[in-house]
Amino acid sequence: MDVVSSLTSALPATAVITDPDSMDAYRWDRAHDPDAGVPAAVVRATSTEEVQTVVRIAAEAKVPIVPRGAGSGLSGGSSAVAGGIVLSLDRMREISIDPVTRMATVQPGAFNAEVKAAAAEHGLWYPPDPSSFEFCSIGGNIATNAGGLCCVKYGVTTDYVLGMTVVLADGRAVKLGGPRLKDVAGLPLTKLFVGSEGTLGVITEVTLRLIPAQLPPTTVVAMFPKLADATNAVLEIAKAMRPSMLEFMDKPSINAVEDELKMGLDREAEGMLVIQSDEPGEHCTVQATIIEEICNSNDASECYLTADPDEGEAFVTARRIAIPAVEKKGALLLEDVGVPLPKLGDLVLGIEKIAADRDVTIAVIAHAGDGNTHPLLVLDPKDEEQQKRAQIAYGEVMDLATGLGGTITGEHGVGRLKAPWLAPYLGEDVMELNHRIKQALDPDNIFNPGSVYTGLV
Amino acid sequence: MDVVSSLTSALPATAVITDPDSMDAYRWDRAHDPDAGVPAAVVRATSTEEVQTVVRIAAEAKVPIVPRGAGSGLSGGSSAVAGGIVLSLDRMREISIDPVTRMATVQPGAFNAEVKAAAAEHGLWYPPDPSSFEFCSIGGNIATNAGGLCCVKYGVTTDYVLGMTVVLADGRAVKLGGPRLKDVAGLPLTKLFVGSEGTLGVITEVTLRLIPAQLPPTTVVAMFPKLADATNAVLEIAKAMRPSMLEFMDKPSINAVEDELKMGLDREAEGMLVIQSDEPGEHCTVQATIIEEICNSNDASECYLTADPDEGEAFVTARRIAIPAVEKKGALLLEDVGVPLPKLGDLVLGIEKIAADRDVTIAVIAHAGDGNTHPLLVLDPKDEEQQKRAQIAYGEVMDLATGLGGTITGEHGVGRLKAPWLAPYLGEDVMELNHRIKQALDPDNIFNPGSVYTGLV
Repeated sequence: MDVVSSLTSALPATAVITDPDSMDAYRWDRAHDPDAGVPAAVVRATSTEEVQTVVRIAAEAKVPIVPRGAGSGLSGGSSAVAGGIVLSLDRMREISIDPVTRMATVQPGAFNAEVKAAAAEHGLWYPPDPSSFEFCSIGGNIATNAGGLCCVKYGVTTDYVLGMTVVLADGRAVKLGGPRLKDVAGLPLTKLFVGSEGTLGVITEVTLRLIPAQLPPTTVVAMFPKLADATNAVLEIAKAMRPSMLEFMDKPSINAVEDELKMGLDREAEGMLVIQSDEPGEHCTVQATIIEEICNSNDASECYLTADPDEGEAFVTARRIAIPAVEKKGALLLEDVGVPLPKLGDLVLGIEKIAADRDVTIAVIAHAGDGNTHPLLVLDPKDEEQQKRAQIAYGEVMDLATGLGGTITGEHGVGRLKAPWLAPYLGEDVMELNHRIKQALDPDNIFNPGSVYTGLV
Repeated sequence: MDVVSSLTSALPATAVITDPDSMDAYRWDRAHDPDAGVPAAVVRATSTEEVQTVVRIAAEAKVPIVPRGAGSGLSGGSSAVAGGIVLSLDRMREISIDPVTRMATVQPGAFNAEVKAAAAEHGLWYPPDPSSFEFCSIGGNIATNAGGLCCVKYGVTTDYVLGMTVVLADGRAVKLGGPRLKDVAGLPLTKLFVGSEGTLGVITEVTLRLIPAQLPPTTVVAMFPKLADATNAVLEIAKAMRPSMLEFMDKPSINAVEDELKMGLDREAEGMLVIQSDEPGEHCTVQATIIEEICNSNDASECYLTADPDEGEAFVTARRIAIPAVEKKGALLLEDVGVPLPKLGDLVLGIEKIAADRDVTIAVIAHAGDGNTHPLLVLDPKDEEQQKRAQIAYGEVMDLATGLGGTITGEHGVGRLKAPWLAPYLGEDVMELNHRIKQALDPDNIFNPGSVYTGLV
């Protein structure tokens, strides 16, 4: 029996899609990988048991599985593989909250925003907040160890994952970790799966740690005529305190946002910072005032402080809207490089040079407090020559970042788009370690082949 | 050439110890494992290169290596193996602090307290604080993913490890992670090594994240005539806020401490809580007042609040001194079981029953806010019958904890003492995953054989 027949006979009819037009929605993520293949089938599983059935069938036939959440990935980590199975978790969206132990049990298809909302009903908070939080899944967040804006104070996804159910390459389901705040029995396998990009197993349920609801933040917005002053202010703020947000936009980003929102941003400014403090009580004002002083002493041309959360949220929205605003200028090729904080200015300047050399527009936004930047390469989809130059620039930005002691990806993952740069970044020995772990857990390379690792058969 | 000859010819004379009397100090940790073997040699390495030399020699001869920090482990994770090499990192103690990026670069032999002190010189803080912080090494902390008292708010060791240099089983040295706050390129190998108990490689340098210095805490101490009221107060406090400390002592612990310190503790109380808030400004008083109210509404017989950090520290010292105070009553067998917070009362009551059934004194202290407890079994070293009963009780306490949804070890590690209980706790499938990772990275089982894993050859 072929794989498709095996799937259709083993699973409910509603779970298996083989019609090419209907499968189309499951072939890409937001990276729009042009090399995405046409799968043999898409399975929309509804339980751990159905996932096990799919994996067993795939393992038997040695057919690839690409696990998939909401398809909001930016590195091609869920591009379909020709002839393989796309295993979508988008129908597995249950969320239950235990307010006593402050934990959430969540299926992988639930959106990040849905988890936040469910937690909020109990006065609780799930901090990780990728800009895509309204349309990205928890499963995808865990696959990439997603970050976001509040990570500068509250950490990334892995800091909130206490346990999970995973279906392994042979179809067995195992529980790793669980609802225990501390547990060091055996290797930290839960941690190994967070950030493994769907290459080691399929996560079908997770236990997340929640914390008390965030206090209302005070927001400071500052415009800097000179880039170096903005990046210096970032360094001074990060050294002086732990702000709950420390975001940067460069001139092209500021202008794209201003085109979109017309909120009166200074189009000549080389840098804009959006900074928040959520410390309790008066300390919030104290911190915000220090932030304001640092910005002013670094020659900010404007600096605005507001304790009104709604007004503050308007500026955060301006920052969040930067990607869609820039996207209106053309197709985007999204970068995700990070550098040690003192190198942030060098990175932005180096990117400006690459943009000029390759004649490509690159707008830079950054989770500046983490040194994690998103250079946005803006492309004319009809200009093939420009696309070739942009591809070169894409690699040059990564080389620039690693040359400054940084990383090729801070929070989006390697996926398929960055796979060629992984081995040069990690080096041969560490790459080989990655291969050994992958082969130990998925010897037939069934899970997400072509993603992350290179040189695997 | 035999292993000892190879070591002495390849390393400086000061690095290799083979005299049995001198080796004795390197055969045990604080678990005093009676089965610790006599090693062929102890090597006190001073550099990554020397560690590589030792590992290459051991790998060639297929001789076991037991890596070792300060020897303060409580699970027999660094008991010497007969005929093997003890690889001590106690001479590798360099610490450097980068106040700009708030990171520390530390060699594994440096004590936790030394890292804290070096950070404090720059107004910074390394939070993880095992009770042994004055005499435990950072390498050991990382090997066990050590916890401590402030973890209830500030997390455990893994949350602060950004990167490391590790010597692998074939003698290669690799750098994993590094001084980058976010980095998701490749599998999270740094996380895999934190908590691997010296079984996957030898860590020779780490990059740690630091945070701004802790604010002066306000301390609440409460005595409860009834145990259930104390554990209920823990639950209510943990639900209402994130205290920076939430520690519990039971009646035998209170009495042992009172014997030692004579500070006027109520010897009839069934539970004592030491709770701290380190929120900024007035919010600290607000939180402490809520804590006080919760304790009083749960029928605390005494409840004392102090904003004086020195006075607060005296109560924390009382809690920290509990282990040595109980140790004066006899030899200790130290447990480290954890349960979900709502089960804390059941665990303490169950332990009381085991103590009565087996006629063994068991004192319980706990990092209550994490559900992580340390039952202390008190033994008369001359009473062999009692030791046999204590061994049974030791297992029964773990069975009790896992039966309540808890873990066999929250922060001390599995080591050799708890290895027999690991597979029953994890289950066959997860144990097999542990084995696969171990075999992928250390196929000849050179690193710390007999520790953690069972059934490996």
